[in-house]
Amino acid sequence: MRSGTNLPRVGGYNRAVILEAIRHGGDVSRVELARLTGLTSQTVSNIVRRLITEGLVVETGRLPSAGGKPRTALALNPHGAYAVGIHLDPDATVTVLVDLAGTVVARVRRRSGTGRGSSPRATVRRLSAGVDQVIRQAGVPAEAVLGVGVAAPGPIDPARGMVVEPPNLAGWHEEPLVTTLAGEVRMPVTLDNDTTAMAVGERWAGGSARSQPFAFLYLGTGIGGGIVLADGVHRGATGNAGEFGHVTVVPDGRACYCGNLGCLEAHCTPRAMVTDLVERHGRAARRLDISAAPNRVRAEYARLCRAADAGDPAAADVVERSVRLLAQASVTLVNVLDVELLVLGGSALRQVADVLLPAVSAAVNERTIARWVRTVSVERSALGDDVGAIGAASLVLHGAYAPGWTQLLSSGVA
Amino acid sequence: MRSGTNLPRVGGYNRAVILEAIRHGGDVSRVELARLTGLTSQTVSNIVRRLITEGLVVETGRLPSAGGKPRTALALNPHGAYAVGIHLDPDATVTVLVDLAGTVVARVRRRSGTGRGSSPRATVRRLSAGVDQVIRQAGVPAEAVLGVGVAAPGPIDPARGMVVEPPNLAGWHEEPLVTTLAGEVRMPVTLDNDTTAMAVGERWAGGSARSQPFAFLYLGTGIGGGIVLADGVHRGATGNAGEFGHVTVVPDGRACYCGNLGCLEAHCTPRAMVTDLVERHGRAARRLDISAAPNRVRAEYARLCRAADAGDPAAADVVERSVRLLAQASVTLVNVLDVELLVLGGSALRQVADVLLPAVSAAVNERTIARWVRTVSVERSALGDDVGAIGAASLVLHGAYAPGWTQLLSSGVA
Repeated sequence: MRSGTNLPRVGGYNRAVILEAIRHGGDVSRVELARLTGLTSQTVSNIVRRLITEGLVVETGRLPSAGGKPRTALALNPHGAYAVGIHLDPDATVTVLVDLAGTVVARVRRRSGTGRGSSPRATVRRLSAGVDQVIRQAGVPAEAVLGVGVAAPGPIDPARGMVVEPPNLAGWHEEPLVTTLAGEVRMPVTLDNDTTAMAVGERWAGGSARSQPFAFLYLGTGIGGGIVLADGVHRGATGNAGEFGHVTVVPDGRACYCGNLGCLEAHCTPRAMVTDLVERHGRAARRLDISAAPNRVRAEYARLCRAADAGDPAAADVVERSVRLLAQASVTLVNVLDVELLVLGGSALRQVADVLLPAVSAAVNERTIARWVRTVSVERSALGDDVGAIGAASLVLHGAYAPGWTQLLSSGVA
Repeated sequence: MRSGTNLPRVGGYNRAVILEAIRHGGDVSRVELARLTGLTSQTVSNIVRRLITEGLVVETGRLPSAGGKPRTALALNPHGAYAVGIHLDPDATVTVLVDLAGTVVARVRRRSGTGRGSSPRATVRRLSAGVDQVIRQAGVPAEAVLGVGVAAPGPIDPARGMVVEPPNLAGWHEEPLVTTLAGEVRMPVTLDNDTTAMAVGERWAGGSARSQPFAFLYLGTGIGGGIVLADGVHRGATGNAGEFGHVTVVPDGRACYCGNLGCLEAHCTPRAMVTDLVERHGRAARRLDISAAPNRVRAEYARLCRAADAGDPAAADVVERSVRLLAQASVTLVNVLDVELLVLGGSALRQVADVLLPAVSAAVNERTIARWVRTVSVERSALGDDVGAIGAASLVLHGAYAPGWTQLLSSGVA
């Protein structure tokens, strides 16, 4: 049953809309805020006054006036609030401190130590030490830090604050991460699917170029995604929406750890691609010194992509196939979601971006059914390799300062 | 830029929430409405009083009281409002008059006459005559009819009220259907993608079993879908979301009219399946008198499915392949959208439902990545073959009486 909305929540929503308009606006006045948000000038004035009192917004001077009243420019106060973001990746854990404007003010990277034999508790203690370290490094007062966001590989169980059977994190089984980490850091902790967090980060830190709905396709150790709609992030029934890595691209294809066959992730990750070279072009693999051994994937993937760029036919064949399947999955996503913007990011993107972006753009604009009605833009993530950690921090800032429609609702109502 | 929400719109939203709770509730009192919606009892009382004055809600008697104040049962007045729905299918046009409770009170079915040589204008005049006919048939006063909803094959351009290059409707090219039909019937006309309309119809007429988010998969002459989220129908950037027929299921597979290769629609419609039998099992096709001639598809599809049921190996092979691809696409949809309910419907479903529903249910519960966290229900549409026309009428009722979050917004704001 849907819930109605009572007035206090409407106030909170409008406050978030104003804050967002100031973030995206650049030298925006109260008059423009009223025009941009459709709110009355009285409502805008009241909300802005409170935001200034709380130190989240500052007046930055007078704007040229077109004859009427002088207008005061408003801007976000980046130092008004901070959040910590942790990207828990099987290879490395990146921890950042991000200010209210989305700028990284401190950063720590450690090897994750989540391989076989390490305990989840030890990992949590290391995470907590990283949180202390970025706050100390930035010299920010602890009370200005709103909380810690954690981006973890799915599937997750947000209701219980758990990482469920994380396929890339050996030794973790239904680990109650939110509870244990909150106990260590003594701050609120938020958990989300890593690629959903990245999509939130794109929205939060990507400026006005990310204010329309978009789908985010992540290419890293694994493949994932996130869906940002007009109303906010689409998390799905259980927080596991946007699993673009598990779009089936090859019927009866390669077995994926998820239990399905022929998933995008089973065919187009760096590991899958070096394996493809070994299995389908053994001679070329030996020539390029590519063995697909787990600990050599990163370097071998880079070598594979360089060889393809240089015209090696076997390497080019493997890259082309992967690009074709990624473009095919993108067509499916655009036909299902009808978004006009597709953002690609992740650490495995750089090596193939020059061929992948044009191929995806051509596919979604030439082979989707509504192509007569709209053009789909395909863009690269603005956030670089720290997108996961920045996204995790954005979970905290986004939750605190940019609630979507759902937060207009009463919660806990049948 | 997101818009804020002003108070009159909040009122309209809460009114819709109350009306929806009464529709789903069955003998619900004001006290229960307050509990169900999270609204104050004062707000509930005010809204209910107005709904009674307008004739949309009636008091149906006293409910047993648990010691406190006596409670008055409230129910929808089905005769409070009506809407016409038209399903514009290439084979036949179905026109229905639906009351506020979602019950069909009159129905007309005509061959569409949209084949080669017929003009869109002539079709529009026939549609208008059908509208008059269902209203006369039901003996309903014209002023109680809120408007006409049209469900048409996509892609559509809702902003211009147009059916764009409808692949199954020869002779239609950017036809301004909304304007021409509204001119004929002199009522408001709403246009939507046919399968999105069906999903709205499931939500509207499907009772409390359809009050959670779901994806609707339609199997008819074509294959399509609709996405209903917690906030309302997901229409996408251009009203063309949910094109499940154009999920790619076979890389480099059969060419689809949409410009893509290997779409679900190119492999799993009745026409594609009889073509498969002819192409891959010529001898069996001749034995079963299946030629895949366009005007024989409906009968030959039924024959193909009966033969598969009876154990004919060639027919069973074709049906099994189609079921496998539909299950594969369902896995993709659940991984992307994270819904806990998948509803299947459409005129081609009946013949394969007994094998398809269990296969889809097994696939989405055994091969999706978040299967540890949730169970996905796979159900048959409650609406039968008129789902398109009922859905079209629901567009009107849904728009008028069940606005989603988006209608809380100011419109036309930059």
